Amino acid sequence: MRGIVLLAHGSRDERWREPIEAVAARVLQDDPAAHVVCAYMELATPDLHSAASGLIADGATAIRVVPLFLGMGKHAREDLPLQLDALRKAWPQVVFSLARIVGEEPELVELLARISAKS
Amino acid sequence: MRGIVLLAHGSRDERWREPIEAVAARVLQDDPAAHVVCAYMELATPDLHSAASGLIADGATAIRVVPLFLGMGKHAREDLPLQLDALRKAWPQVVFSLARIVGEEPELVELLARISAKS
Repeated sequence: MRGIVLLAHGSRDERWREPIEAVAARVLQDDPAAHVVCAYMELATPDLHSAASGLIADGATAIRVVPLFLGMGKHAREDLPLQLDALRKAWPQVVFSLARIVGEEPELVELLARISAKS
Repeated sequence: MRGIVLLAHGSRDERWREPIEAVAARVLQDDPAAHVVCAYMELATPDLHSAASGLIADGATAIRVVPLFLGMGKHAREDLPLQLDALRKAWPQVVFSLARIVGEEPELVELLARISAKS
């Protein structure tokens, strides 16, 4: 079974997560058999380790981590690969993959440009 | 003339801005006559006031502010409307409009779900 972790920055603000959780809900709407959870780098729970742990307890043998970041900062460039290394050490039997940040997906850039130029 | 401000969180990290600037470049690619600038809430320049000032100096009579935020936190809910009020007071002759955060656009949620579920 493959799990998906939607990893976002996080905020103290409860409502901050709503759009992130909406993406998870949409993944499930598109594929009701998907195993998708949200996780946060800081200020909100669960963190990546807990989210991965939950998916593995449910039987995940592969986990795709998708950073829902628009900006490509230190979190995305440095912290994330380190966190993935830690996951691989904790669960060597699980295949972890790290997607590029969504802000670097050409389709996303195109859609953001279209949204921005709307009248 | 209408100006567009792409407003993002900002970061000390120079490279953080690359995906934001890529959106501005894409707006210009789609419409070479567009007047689009990036601005940042914190830790990077220009801020919204400076960005608006530049567009108005270039002749903008209407400015659309597009918050490139995925999460809907205090910045988006509270700071942004206050900043828009300040712009309206500073330039009463200019029509300012504030788009909803891109994280709340159904098309964006749909695309993020599709990207997240890719194999």
